[in-house]
Amino acid sequence: VSPSTTAFADAIHLEPQLDGTYAGLVDGGWTIGGKPNGGYLLAMLASAALEEVPHDHVLAASAHFLHSPDPGPISLTTEVLRVGRSASQVRARLSQDGKPCIEALLMIGTLDAADEPHWAGGAPAPSGVGPEECLRLPSTGPTGVHVAIMDQVDLRLDPESLGFASGRPAGRGELRGWLQLPGADFDPVSLLYAVDAFPPATFDVELSGWVPTMELTAYIRALPAPGPVRILHKAQLIEADRVDEVSFVWDSRGRLVAQATQLAGIRLGR
Amino acid sequence: VSPSTTAFADAIHLEPQLDGTYAGLVDGGWTIGGKPNGGYLLAMLASAALEEVPHDHVLAASAHFLHSPDPGPISLTTEVLRVGRSASQVRARLSQDGKPCIEALLMIGTLDAADEPHWAGGAPAPSGVGPEECLRLPSTGPTGVHVAIMDQVDLRLDPESLGFASGRPAGRGELRGWLQLPGADFDPVSLLYAVDAFPPATFDVELSGWVPTMELTAYIRALPAPGPVRILHKAQLIEADRVDEVSFVWDSRGRLVAQATQLAGIRLGR
Repeated sequence: VSPSTTAFADAIHLEPQLDGTYAGLVDGGWTIGGKPNGGYLLAMLASAALEEVPHDHVLAASAHFLHSPDPGPISLTTEVLRVGRSASQVRARLSQDGKPCIEALLMIGTLDAADEPHWAGGAPAPSGVGPEECLRLPSTGPTGVHVAIMDQVDLRLDPESLGFASGRPAGRGELRGWLQLPGADFDPVSLLYAVDAFPPATFDVELSGWVPTMELTAYIRALPAPGPVRILHKAQLIEADRVDEVSFVWDSRGRLVAQATQLAGIRLGR
Repeated sequence: VSPSTTAFADAIHLEPQLDGTYAGLVDGGWTIGGKPNGGYLLAMLASAALEEVPHDHVLAASAHFLHSPDPGPISLTTEVLRVGRSASQVRARLSQDGKPCIEALLMIGTLDAADEPHWAGGAPAPSGVGPEECLRLPSTGPTGVHVAIMDQVDLRLDPESLGFASGRPAGRGELRGWLQLPGADFDPVSLLYAVDAFPPATFDVELSGWVPTMELTAYIRALPAPGPVRILHKAQLIEADRVDEVSFVWDSRGRLVAQATQLAGIRLGR
């Protein structure tokens, strides 16, 4: 971790409070145009949920984004919905100044490093060039927005996905590339950030302003191996000022470790 | 609606109670092996949420399944999280005998029949044969389980997806076909059932017992035209006794009207 970056674990650090809630701080470095990344915030909610139940890893997280918090203090509350033998469920809420910002449901269980895929025939295969042939995104985006988070993480896009940067999107709605955290490897919690880390996949169709996440559901499928993760972020349908995007995250062994779907707001063609 | 079927609207009917909760009845006809379909239950949660806010249609629903209720009385509670100009968010819980069964987060907004896709280049195109060339699934499934719900709905699979019925799954993890409700057209609420209506897509890989939904997230993208809907239900990765499945639902005009992803439990190869 260089002096200018905040480790992910520090950026999501929570302090348990005497009343059973958790206090956290939205880090100004983990923002896009001054607003925190949604997956980064979801990782905070998962951290709080993990404190509440006997299992070790987040397996599924579904979040509805109500209001974007600003950098600064936040509060998290949790409610254990069920404690099971192999998995438990927790509801969690992130609020700022008493205003609910994110409501999430989380399934917590335990992943075993020895597990192997039984059948992976329906998932896309990892594709694209290696990280050394990708280009790192700068913190000044093509829309002029300051993307502070790009000074934290090493996010590299495949040259074939970079048409948007020169005003020539490929029109496929697909961004491929790699992601690495500052000075740390991924774990199930930080994979919740990975699924939402890429620029809007719609940039490969048409540039726009902020594409705010309304709903984000992520599944963590395996413990990631050390090293950067490969990501495919893909838009499916843009209609009525909303777009759905799917993400696939593979670890350095090529194993699918996380998947996600999100519904986001978008303004185009007006 | 024939004498032997219960209309979907009746099967999800709720009675508002004086204490602000809703009372409902899980219909024994809408079950698989005696357990209600998860999408059918999610439609009940959406119905309750719709009563609470000024908007007309469910746009997104994320549900975690804690405990499967039996046919019989259930209770629904709601909490409005946010009321916005174009969309509102509601949390809803379905309980039976005081035990929480499903916890869901719902985004409610308004769909306009005049909306058209702006870009649909990342979504699969509808494919497969028409309903008249598909075969209707009977209420006795290939695993011997009584699938009562197949006497309610008209669910037809493409002959290419029916290998599992004769012990010869194609191995693609894909089921294609059509769905129609008894005596009614689809609306956004009943599309929440449509995304979860098909048999497990894993049947096209390997037959198994019950594949219980753990998490289900659905996006309703457009108001469906009258008539049956075309469905693609697809498994992606089976690992550690869990599988993720995606669903795409097209209306009779060929418009993508709903999408969903789910994480489910599965026992194979042991």
